[in-house]
Amino acid sequence: MKHFTFFLVAVATIAGLVALIAPAPGHADGEPAPIFVTEIPHGYRDWRWISSAHEAGNLNSLGAVLGNDVAINAYREGKLPFPDGTIIAALHYRYVPSDENNKVFGQAQSFVPGAPTNIQFMVKDSTKYAATGGWGFAHFADGKPGDAAFMKSCFPCHEKAKATDLVFTRYAP
Amino acid sequence: MKHFTFFLVAVATIAGLVALIAPAPGHADGEPAPIFVTEIPHGYRDWRWISSAHEAGNLNSLGAVLGNDVAINAYREGKLPFPDGTIIAALHYRYVPSDENNKVFGQAQSFVPGAPTNIQFMVKDSTKYAATGGWGFAHFADGKPGDAAFMKSCFPCHEKAKATDLVFTRYAP
Repeated sequence: MKHFTFFLVAVATIAGLVALIAPAPGHADGEPAPIFVTEIPHGYRDWRWISSAHEAGNLNSLGAVLGNDVAINAYREGKLPFPDGTIIAALHYRYVPSDENNKVFGQAQSFVPGAPTNIQFMVKDSTKYAATGGWGFAHFADGKPGDAAFMKSCFPCHEKAKATDLVFTRYAP
Repeated sequence: MKHFTFFLVAVATIAGLVALIAPAPGHADGEPAPIFVTEIPHGYRDWRWISSAHEAGNLNSLGAVLGNDVAINAYREGKLPFPDGTIIAALHYRYVPSDENNKVFGQAQSFVPGAPTNIQFMVKDSTKYAATGGWGFAHFADGKPGDAAFMKSCFPCHEKAKATDLVFTRYAP
């Protein structure tokens, strides 16, 4: 009986998940459609700082990674996987030299955020985003979400950071 | 704020030499003694993010500038000069490549904060710090404040940013 109940719960859970993730349009290959975050999380610019990063090369980006309270607490406590409710925001800007700083230094050495390029989010909801490791991914440029083809590339890349629950950024002390 | 370390080092060296040959304490020239901030402001790691910066060259630094509520409000409202109570924090780390990110990217392009190097603060109190443009300057490495010779170099460098009330860092949107 016990086993049967467990089985029912398990089946119901799976059925529920399938219901949540399956509805989208054609999936001839049987793969559930990934769900992406299409609204900018409220108040993210007031969140606390997790770390900064410079991506050279084509990205040519300088930015910051911020986290809501759930994210910050999880980072500080070393809690893995990140709990549901975690939201991590990556704010990206062009990596540009600061002419005014360089004048003070007397040499070209200072680089600062230039024009904003995009904002990306990872939203943890292990039920809603079960098909993508419990994370919903988001990308906004000029306030507009990335298209489906672009968004499909988030999970396969983040999946490589399995040891840290798909999150690349470490907390800067 | 973030950029004065290099300048500080250069000036501190000169100032150190001068200190060796000059009678230290007295202020025969009538100049008031600069006062420096010698305690780390409480809770700064929870403050909101103003901007990030990379200083190349000798500094080899990647960091973030955070602000307390007074600072953030002043930045957002474009309020100049910054009101009393403003505190701006610059958190500096070694600028290091991220091997794990680069593996994912397939090329060396990702740079992140390494070991912490120092934390610097600007504290606005137009009465207490009247002799240095209303700002008290602070520098901490391993929790220890910079010595007087080192600290004397802060104001002459920040004075070059008169148009923005001695603050170099701009708010990243």
